[in-house]
Parts: sequence; structure tokens; C-alpha cells
Amino acid sequence: MFGQKMQAIVLAAGKSSRFQTGKSKLVETICGQEMILFSTNLLSTLNIPTTIVLGYQKEQIQEIINKKHGGAVNFIKQQEQHGTGHAVACTQNKWDREHILIMNGDMPLVRQDIIIDLYKKHIEQDAAISFVTSCCTGSNHSYGRVIEDGKTIEIIEAKEFHGQKTEVCIINAGIYLVKKEFLQDSINEIEKSETTKEFYLTDLVKIASDQGLTICTVNAPFDQIRGINNLQELWAAEQVKRAELIKHWMEKGVRFGIAHTVHLELDIEIGPGSSIGCSVHINKGSRIGKNCIIQQNSIIENSILESNVMVHPNSIINNSYISSGASIGPFAYIRENTIIKEQAQVGNFVEVKNTILGSGSKAKHLSYLGNATIGKNVNIGAGTITCNFNGVSKNKTIIEDNVFIGSNNTIVAPVIIQEDSFTAAGSTITENVPKEALAISRTRQINKENYGPKLKKRYEQTERDTKESFIAAAKVKEASTEL
Amino acid sequence: MFGQKMQAIVLAAGKSSRFQTGKSKLVETICGQEMILFSTNLLSTLNIPTTIVLGYQKEQIQEIINKKHGGAVNFIKQQEQHGTGHAVACTQNKWDREHILIMNGDMPLVRQDIIIDLYKKHIEQDAAISFVTSCCTGSNHSYGRVIEDGKTIEIIEAKEFHGQKTEVCIINAGIYLVKKEFLQDSINEIEKSETTKEFYLTDLVKIASDQGLTICTVNAPFDQIRGINNLQELWAAEQVKRAELIKHWMEKGVRFGIAHTVHLELDIEIGPGSSIGCSVHINKGSRIGKNCIIQQNSIIENSILESNVMVHPNSIINNSYISSGASIGPFAYIRENTIIKEQAQVGNFVEVKNTILGSGSKAKHLSYLGNATIGKNVNIGAGTITCNFNGVSKNKTIIEDNVFIGSNNTIVAPVIIQEDSFTAAGSTITENVPKEALAISRTRQINKENYGPKLKKRYEQTERDTKESFIAAAKVKEASTEL
Amino acid sequence: MFGQKMQAIVLAAGKSSRFQTGKSKLVETICGQEMILFSTNLLSTLNIPTTIVLGYQKEQIQEIINKKHGGAVNFIKQQEQHGTGHAVACTQNKWDREHILIMNGDMPLVRQDIIIDLYKKHIEQDAAISFVTSCCTGSNHSYGRVIEDGKTIEIIEAKEFHGQKTEVCIINAGIYLVKKEFLQDSINEIEKSETTKEFYLTDLVKIASDQGLTICTVNAPFDQIRGINNLQELWAAEQVKRAELIKHWMEKGVRFGIAHTVHLELDIEIGPGSSIGCSVHINKGSRIGKNCIIQQNSIIENSILESNVMVHPNSIINNSYISSGASIGPFAYIRENTIIKEQAQVGNFVEVKNTILGSGSKAKHLSYLGNATIGKNVNIGAGTITCNFNGVSKNKTIIEDNVFIGSNNTIVAPVIIQEDSFTAAGSTITENVPKEALAISRTRQINKENYGPKLKKRYEQTERDTKESFIAAAKVKEASTEL
Repeated sequence: MFGQKMQAIVLAAGKSSRFQTGKSKLVETICGQEMILFSTNLLSTLNIPTTIVLGYQKEQIQEIINKKHGGAVNFIKQQEQHGTGHAVACTQNKWDREHILIMNGDMPLVRQDIIIDLYKKHIEQDAAISFVTSCCTGSNHSYGRVIEDGKTIEIIEAKEFHGQKTEVCIINAGIYLVKKEFLQDSINEIEKSETTKEFYLTDLVKIASDQGLTICTVNAPFDQIRGINNLQELWAAEQVKRAELIKHWMEKGVRFGIAHTVHLELDIEIGPGSSIGCSVHINKGSRIGKNCIIQQNSIIENSILESNVMVHPNSIINNSYISSGASIGPFAYIRENTIIKEQAQVGNFVEVKNTILGSGSKAKHLSYLGNATIGKNVNIGAGTITCNFNGVSKNKTIIEDNVFIGSNNTIVAPVIIQEDSFTAAGSTITENVPKEALAISRTRQINKENYGPKLKKRYEQTERDTKESFIAAAKVKEASTEL
Repeated sequence: MFGQKMQAIVLAAGKSSRFQTGKSKLVETICGQEMILFSTNLLSTLNIPTTIVLGYQKEQIQEIINKKHGGAVNFIKQQEQHGTGHAVACTQNKWDREHILIMNGDMPLVRQDIIIDLYKKHIEQDAAISFVTSCCTGSNHSYGRVIEDGKTIEIIEAKEFHGQKTEVCIINAGIYLVKKEFLQDSINEIEKSETTKEFYLTDLVKIASDQGLTICTVNAPFDQIRGINNLQELWAAEQVKRAELIKHWMEKGVRFGIAHTVHLELDIEIGPGSSIGCSVHINKGSRIGKNCIIQQNSIIENSILESNVMVHPNSIINNSYISSGASIGPFAYIRENTIIKEQAQVGNFVEVKNTILGSGSKAKHLSYLGNATIGKNVNIGAGTITCNFNGVSKNKTIIEDNVFIGSNNTIVAPVIIQEDSFTAAGSTITENVPKEALAISRTRQINKENYGPKLKKRYEQTERDTKESFIAAAKVKEASTEL
Repeated sequence: MFGQKMQAIVLAAGKSSRFQTGKSKLVETICGQEMILFSTNLLSTLNIPTTIVLGYQKEQIQEIINKKHGGAVNFIKQQEQHGTGHAVACTQNKWDREHILIMNGDMPLVRQDIIIDLYKKHIEQDAAISFVTSCCTGSNHSYGRVIEDGKTIEIIEAKEFHGQKTEVCIINAGIYLVKKEFLQDSINEIEKSETTKEFYLTDLVKIASDQGLTICTVNAPFDQIRGINNLQELWAAEQVKRAELIKHWMEKGVRFGIAHTVHLELDIEIGPGSSIGCSVHINKGSRIGKNCIIQQNSIIENSILESNVMVHPNSIINNSYISSGASIGPFAYIRENTIIKEQAQVGNFVEVKNTILGSGSKAKHLSYLGNATIGKNVNIGAGTITCNFNGVSKNKTIIEDNVFIGSNNTIVAPVIIQEDSFTAAGSTITENVPKEALAISRTRQINKENYGPKLKKRYEQTERDTKESFIAAAKVKEASTEL
């Protein structure tokens, strides 16, 4: 099995100061996944046991890793940060396999084949140390440079390099594979830099070169090895990942509107024949079936949509389950623990939370349904509110099959409205409604004839009075100021 | 008249299997127009009578074409699909003009001048067969290659080509103009490919070349002849078309926000001085007047906006008519058959359907107006619902000029509220309201003094009881499980 | 002090006819700032007193400048427009400093250092006239060309140039620094063009050259000197500016979603650690604190958000103040003069205007709060409407601390609801509510048993009757038509 002669050290102790956010960059997400997990997932897929060197915001990073890998990853704390050489030295008593793979924790786009190629070449050539390089075209950057003259090879860190910074050069990507013996022998030979007072891991290359040991390099495209040192690089990396994901789903039969406005995350599924509108977000944990239509600006988060679901524009679906043929939105907000059954319809300005809406039922306008269980073929009138909260506890509304709830109803939970019943428009329902009954709670309308003009006159008089009293008050104030 | 010596055969029988959507690609839209219509519109503009060879999803494609061209296009069914040569052979008894133009149905970006140039050169040089070529830079593709050695010329289909696939080459675009006599003589001479068991139409070129007949080629930019074989190519074609449309309207005096987030369709109008915000969609059939402002994320679909209309962000207007000076949104949803008159205002979280809102009238907050005719200078209070549906039929609400509808009203149709009348806040209006009357239907407020703390205590007690009974029930369950 | 020997003339009289909008281009905004202000701000920063030559839409432009610079800028009206030479001649009696800086008003991307470099070189070399050039790669454009043969130098206006238009060339950017004496001596020597009947300011270069005077040029990148002559160029300039702003805030620790869908304006602040979602707009006058999260498609306009504010998707905040830890949206609309206090929550489909919402208070669903002062820890039930408008005047609602407003309440202002009180769901509150009271205004519910089926039968009968009468009416009509 690949990986069995290797173990990995991931360097993740840095302060991310160039991010300027006050947070470790390793907890920032790329397409919904925290940056540090790109490294740990890669190593886990390759069956390489991993030790992470942590420092800044150790607890937060550790929690993320443990949540994903359930304790399969080891942690070492680098108390003080004296450079990459020092970080690796801290892990010394964890070294128990033949080859030690060392990589930075901020390289989310590294692919398996880079590691596999590195390992193969390292073994084939029986190298003391092997590392990944890339070709970098101009522009000032923060990578170490690989300087090779045919006989010797070394890496000069960016901070120590004083030559022409913008010329094309070979850079050190930050992935090393080192024979344990060589690492043990040489890790303590690294000398502190006079410029930065740091110990550079990259000095190992010169040490090996000076001893005439074999050194291998593997070249990789820059886009795959780019390190993330500031928010612009994070943004660039997310662009790369997002474009990859969109291309992947296009190839699986998913149509996109203006693709470069769509946000997809990792850990989603989209069925063939589905169509994703402009500015849609599909966040992790979502499973979208075949022939669904998700229209523009909708957000699907950790939710399941069966097939043939229609999501109209500007809808949000969180942690819910939408059955086949249902129609949602526009402007609908489906919140946690909601189940919308087959062919049911949730319309505009409707919020649904912790509720089951039965098959064929409709809640099409300006409603709030919370803590409710609603049967089949129920019609919820426009403006209906389930009052599930009394300031202390949440209570349940049950509406059975074929009920017709009139418009602007206020349904005070706990309450049961039995099948085939009606409620009159404008009612406040506080008591259970029996099967087939009509529940009504409203006052008879009175038309006060000719009252309109009087009312208007009264309001106008009040308005005049108010204005006059304001003016009077202002005059008083002015007078008193003048005194 | 151009076109009178030509007839066209459009090849549209394929299965679109690389789309992976289960649908024929020809029904997919590009800027609102189905792909097949790009070809048929082009040929119709050039007065070239057209026969379409259909196979997969024949009915759907035929319906789209007939809806547009009203029966002016002929159809031939290719029962089984044995390649392009076979498809053309199927149309044999339709050939009645001097020159037969043959093109693929999946080339939406072809412009008139390509066809005109092809025809001119074909006639001038008295060619047996003429075809369109393009220059293709590298990358693996699915086009046939044009191989010419000065003496002979032939097209090698991608599937038959075994050379270096990534080098720059001349490709066959898929548009041919053939003399009827030559086509009749040679269509049955095409031999079945051993590799694919298909008859390639492109073999005609070699046949003509072998007979020493004249063959013309016309070169066109790749962007104009690109065929659409998968969803990525569809996306690329739509990008090209969309950018063209945006440029066109910019030149006509329309300002765009972040233009690359805007979706425009064909068959729209936008007046000069209008401004289109970020992520706006303007769909086919829309006519927008001068100096309108459509703010971000709004969607205008098959609707007419006169001049000086203001559409605030996140509004949707479908199949409706908005008069000069009206203001819509934000978060408004104007649905089918709505007319908003001059200076009227529809505000946030308001849905209007099948309704006339008179000039100067306002419905600014959280309302649903359906099947209503509303006069001038009417004020619709926040939270008003017209109850137009009783579970069986839809009924009409009539609100005359200068009416003031109080907040949170429930207006049960059919009902007429006459001019200059008022309705009190919180009322349910079930009966007609006479002119100048005040309609009121509400219960007098009672303040139960000191009742608040009791109520809270009661709710808290219930909450405690519920929790206790849950715990008790859980214990019982646990006990019974242990047994 | 830089600027003390200079004065500036800005040419801003043109008709902007290529914009096709009917408006002067100088009032169009770029990232929220009117185009003309980019020039006036630049000159004001450099302490150069400025005279603007106005013509078309003089009043609108003057108003914008005065609003910003409070009368510190002079205006000259160019009555008729006879070219740039004529425009400058109109300002003749304003010339009172040693060097006259002349620039076009439609160059929003010019940076300070260009002006500083131009001045330095002009002074060092004791030039009669100095001007800014740029290198332009091909494409037909509207810039004058700089023609230099080692001995003489001149600028040929685009309209007078008849050579190969698409070759690479040096263009005249439109920024000149001229010695007052030279300007005075030569401004009237410019001859009218036979082609356009205009006086070209650029002829000054040839005049100086012919007299053997020193002429300096300073080269600048095209992106910084691009003039804006049509809506596409405006769009390109705004893209450049917007990208600059996003880069700036990224460097300050702000994370962006899909950055190329975000609209930022000038005159904003965003604190480090904040995150800005896709398609968000942050408009001028906004100040966003640390660690805020503004989710996708939200719009912040001239508002202050303290730290740790959460804005859920699709929310709009205008001219308001949001305190630390508050949560807004999704689908919330916070309008002018609103203050949301610490930890308060405004939820979905809620509009708040001219209102204070106290700390820890919640209005989470489908509500309208206007002209209200709401205390701490208040719960506003779903569907609550404050009725602040009676058709004539606006009135105030006061809700004190710890009040619980039931769902679907209609609160008719002016009204005071005192602390610790409750209102029952579905109530219309028209009178003040004392401390700790329960206010209730609703009718007891009646359940009419077995009434449901009767009601349905009745509705169905009416529906049948209506249809029959339609059919009968249609038949009558048809019969009468046949007569």
C-alpha cells in the first residue's frame, strides 16, 4: 500500500499575519472546506500517518481536524516559532518511518500525483532529500529560490535573496521528502539565519549537497503548489477550486447560468439535467437530484432536494428536505428541520421552520409556519402565522389533510385543526377545530356611513395642531436661547 | 432575392449524448432562444427554404420550430442514425433547387455573411461543393480536419484521424453548399466507415476532388462557427452572445453595473438613459423605456416598462405592464396580468397578481393583491391581504379612487369598496363599503391588568411540566428497555 | 507647498454625445463618485486652484462640484463650443499664476504622481509646454497622435489623422502644463481646423516646436490616463477602480466571496476580519466594523455597522446604525433613521424605518416597524404591523422594555405599550397598555360543526353558476354577432 514507508509532518504553526484578519489562515474556508483539511485529507487518502505542528490558534485548528479525522492525526505544539527548521525539529520524537514527508499547511491545491511522483523518484534514486519545485514567472514573491549550478544545489529563502527579484526562476514549493536517517543526522546542523534569527528547513538541501548525497526534485505547475499567504492568494485559490468544481458538474450534465457568479462547495451532489441559475450558492452537504431547476440567487445549504424540484429566484433552503416535484419561492426561506413533501408549494415571502408540509399542500404568500405538522392538500391562506412561541416555550400546530386555512389567520399553538375543516379569513384560531367544521373568530363588519370625511378632517386638525405646537415650542426655545 | 436558388438541410437528429442531460441540446436556450432557432432564423432571414432532419426528441424540437416559423419549415425523420451522409440522403426527395446548403443544427453563432460569402464564392467559381473552414489552435477537439496538398483536398473526421491531435490545423466547420446534380450523383457513393459504421457527408469533398471538380472553401473565425457539443461549449457560446448583447445596448445609451453579472436575452428593448444594475436579468419579450433604473438582482420577464420607472433591488416583474414614473420594490413580486399605473408605488414584500393598481396608488408593505381593480390615489395599508380564493374559485376585489385601506386588513372577495371610504386597521372586510363610509370590524381592546406576570408564570409552569413528563417518559422507556 | 506656482483649467463643456444617454457624462458615477469630482479632488489634494470650463448641463455639474468643494472652484461658461483651444481661451482673464495646468474633465483614473512628475520635469527643463503621453497598442481610437522626428514635435488630432490608424503609436493623453507667458502669446495664434472648424489646443505644441522652445513629455500607463467617451469606456474605468478598491480592502484584512461580483464605492471603511459575500454592494458613506459578516447580495448604503454584526443574505440597510452583535436578515429592509441596538435581531421579511429597536429585542418575521421606539428584550411577534400613517400624518409607537407582542398584531399609533406587558395574538392595539397588563382584542372562536362541506358545496355551486352565465352571455353575443 502506498504510504506505508512514509509519515508526514505538516507545518501549521504560523501567525498568518499577512492575512490581517486576526485569525489563523488555516481555518479560512475554500469552497466550504477549511484550508488545513486540504492537506490532511490528501495525506489521509494516501494513507500517510500525519503529525501537525501547531502554534497560533492551536485549539481552533485542532478542533477542525479532529472533527474531520476523529483523532487519527497527531499534534505537536511549537511553543515559540523559530522557523521551519525549528518546527520540524520539534517533531523529532515522532519519527518512526523510513521517510518523512514535510509540507506546509497552506497549500490547498496540491494533488495526489505530486506526492506520488515525489515518492517514486525519491525511492528510485535513493535520495537523501527530495523536494517539489515550480517555475515562477517574474513578480516579487515570497518563495525560496532553487539555485543549481550542475554540481551543487541549494535553496535561498526569499528574505535572504538579494538578486534581481523579478526574473523567471525555479522556486521551492514547500514539499519535502527526507530519509529519516538523513533528517536525524542533519536537523540540528541547521544554523540560525543572521537576518531573521530563524532556522530554515531549506538548509537541508545545501547540507545534503555538500555531503554529495542524492537530491531529487519534481516540478509541478504553480497553480497546484501555490501557498496562501494573504487574502488575495486565498481568493485566487478559491477561484481555481470553484472553476474546477463547476467544470466537473458541467461534465456530469448540469447546466449553469453565468457560471462565474455561481458558488459551489465541496461535498455536494447535483443530478444530471439540473440547471443552476446565476449567483446561486450550493453549500456543503447538499444533494440535488435530477432535473431540478435552481433559479438565480438562491442558496441551498446542507439540504436534500429530490428530483424535479423547482426553486424560484431568491430562495434560501437550509438543513431541510424537499421532495420530488415541490416548488419553492421566489423569496422563500426554508429553515432547519423542514420537510416539504411531493408536489407541495411554498411561495413568496413565506418562512417555514421545523415543519412538515404534506404532499400537494400550498402556502403561497406571506406566511410563517413554525413547529407545524401539515397534512396533504392543505391550503394555507396568505398572511397566515403559526404562533409557536409564547415568550417561554415553543408549541406545536397540527393541521390535518384537506384543511382550508383562510387568509390572515393567526393560529395559536398548541392546536389541532382536523381534516376537511375550514377557518374563516381574518380569524385567530386558539382552540381545536373538529373535522369538517368551519372555525370563525371575527367581529361583524360595521359601515359607519359618511364617517370617512369626518375622520380625515380630524386627522388633518391633529396634524395642524401638532405642527403649531412644534412651532410654538420652537419659538419658546428660541426666545429662551436669546435671553 | 438572395436565397432563391438555394434550399437548406439542417442536421438535427443527434442524441446530444455528450450533454449528459437526457435532453436534446437543440432545445437548450442561449440568451433565451432555443439553439435550433438560431439556424432556422438565420435561414429564414436569408429566404432559404429549410428542411430539418430530426430524430431524437423530434416532437419537442418540431414544436419549438413550428411555434416560431408557423409551419414554414419542413421536417424529415431520420429513423435510424447512420451518420451525416445518411441524414442528408434521407432528404433526397425534397431536393428541388439548384444548390443545397447543408449545416449542423448546433451552430448558434453563425452570421449571415458567412452564408452569403459561401454562396458568392460557390457561384463565382461554379463549384461542385463549397464549405466553411476555420483555423483551430491546438487542443483536442471533435472537428474534422481539412487536408489539402495543393492537388487534392479531403476532410478527415476526428474519429478517423490518428495524427498529432494538438497541432494547429484547418477544421471543417460543418456548413456545405452543394450543387444538386453533384449531390444526387455522389450521395450514394459514400462508403460506410469501418471504424464507426457511419456514412460521412464529408466524404463528398474527396469524391469531388477525385473527380477533379471545383471545391471552394470560405474561412470564418472559430467563435462564429463553434459547434455546441457539451455544456461547457454551450456556456461559452452563451457568454459570447451575452457579451454581444450588452455591448449593443451600451452603444444605445444603456448603462450597466457589473456588466459580466447581467443576463440579457434576445428580443428585448432598453431605452437610452436607462441603467441596469448588477445581476439583473432582462428576459425575452421585455420592453424597457427611457431613463428607467433597474436595480441590482431584479428580474424583468416579458414585461413592458414605460419611461422613468424605478425598480428597486430584488424585484421580479413577470408578464406585466408598468407605467411611467411607477416605483417597484425592493423585494416586490409583480405577477402575470398586472398593470401598475403612472406614479403608483409597490413596496417591499408585496405580491401583485392579475391586478390593476391605479395611478398614484400605493401598496408599500407586506401585502398580497390578487384579482383586484384598484383606483387612483388609494392607500393600501401594510399587511393587507385580498382573499381572492375560497378553495374553489377566484373572486374579484374592487377598490375605488381615494380609498384608505387600514393596515393588516383582510379583504374577502367578491367585494366593492367605494370611493373616498376608509377601513379601520385590523379589519376583515366581507361586505361592500359605501362611498365615504368607515368600515370597521374589530373587537374593542381589553387590558387585563397585572395579567402579564400570571401568564408568564403559567407558560413557565407548562414548560416545566412538559420537560418533566418527557423525562418521566424517557425513564419509563429506559426501564422497559432494560427489562 | 506643491501647487503654489500652478493653477488648473479643467475642460468640461462637451456634450457627451457618444454616451447616447442625454446626460453629461461628467455626472455619471464611478464607484459612487461623479466623474468630474475625480479631477477636482485630485487638484484639490495637490493644492492647485481650479477653474472649470462648463457648457452642456452646466448647472448639474456646478451643483455637484459646489456640494463637494463648497465654492472653492471657479467656473467659466463656454457659450459656444469651438474646440479645446477655444475653451482654454475663454479662461484667459483667470490666468494669474506662473504655470497653467490644463486637463480634460473625463479622466477619472489619473494619479497624483503623473501631475507631480509633469511639474518637476517642466520646471527642471524650463519648458514652454509639457504634456502627458501614453503608448497605445493598435485599435481605432479617438486620441491625438504625437509625431516626433527628433527635431520637431507635434500632435495630430484623430480627426485630422489619415494614416494607418491601427498601428502602435504614442498618443496625447490630454494633460498639459504651459507657461503662462507662452500660453498668453500663443493661444490666439491657433488656427481653425478646416475639417472640423475647431481650434485645437494641441496646436500649441507645434507652435512651441516651431519657435524652438523646450517641450517636455511624461509617459504614463494607458490605464491611468484613459478618457471616458462612451459607456463601454465608463464601464472599463469602473472595473479598474473597483478592482483597485477590492485589492485595497483585501490587503487590510477583509475577505471577499466571488470578488468580481462585489460592488464597492469610494468613501467606505471595512474593518479587518470582516467578510463580504458575493454580489454584495457597499455604497459610499458606509462604515463597517471588525469581524462583521455581510452575506451574499446584501446592500449597505451610507450606514454604520459596529463590530460583529451579522447581515444575512438579501438584506438592505440604508442610512441606519447597527450596533455590535446585532443580526439582520435574511430578506430584511432597514430604512432611514433606524438604530438597531446591541444583540438585537431583525429577521426575514421585516421592514424597519425611522425606528429604534432596543438591545436584545427581536422582530424576526414578516413585520413592519415604522416610527417606533422599542425598548430592551422586546419580542415582536410574526406578522406585526405598526400603523404609523393614517392617510394624513405619521404617528409614534412606543413599546417599553420586556414587552411581548403577540403574532399578527396591528398596533395603531400613537400608542404606548408599557414595560412587561403582553398583547394577545391577533389583536389590534388602539389604546395604551399599562405595565404588566395583557391587552387583548379579539372575538371568541366559534366552530360551526359540519359547516365545511356545506361551504364547499356553496362555493362550487357559485362557480358553476358563474361559468354557465359566462357561457350564456357568450352565446348571446355570438348570436347577436351572427345577425
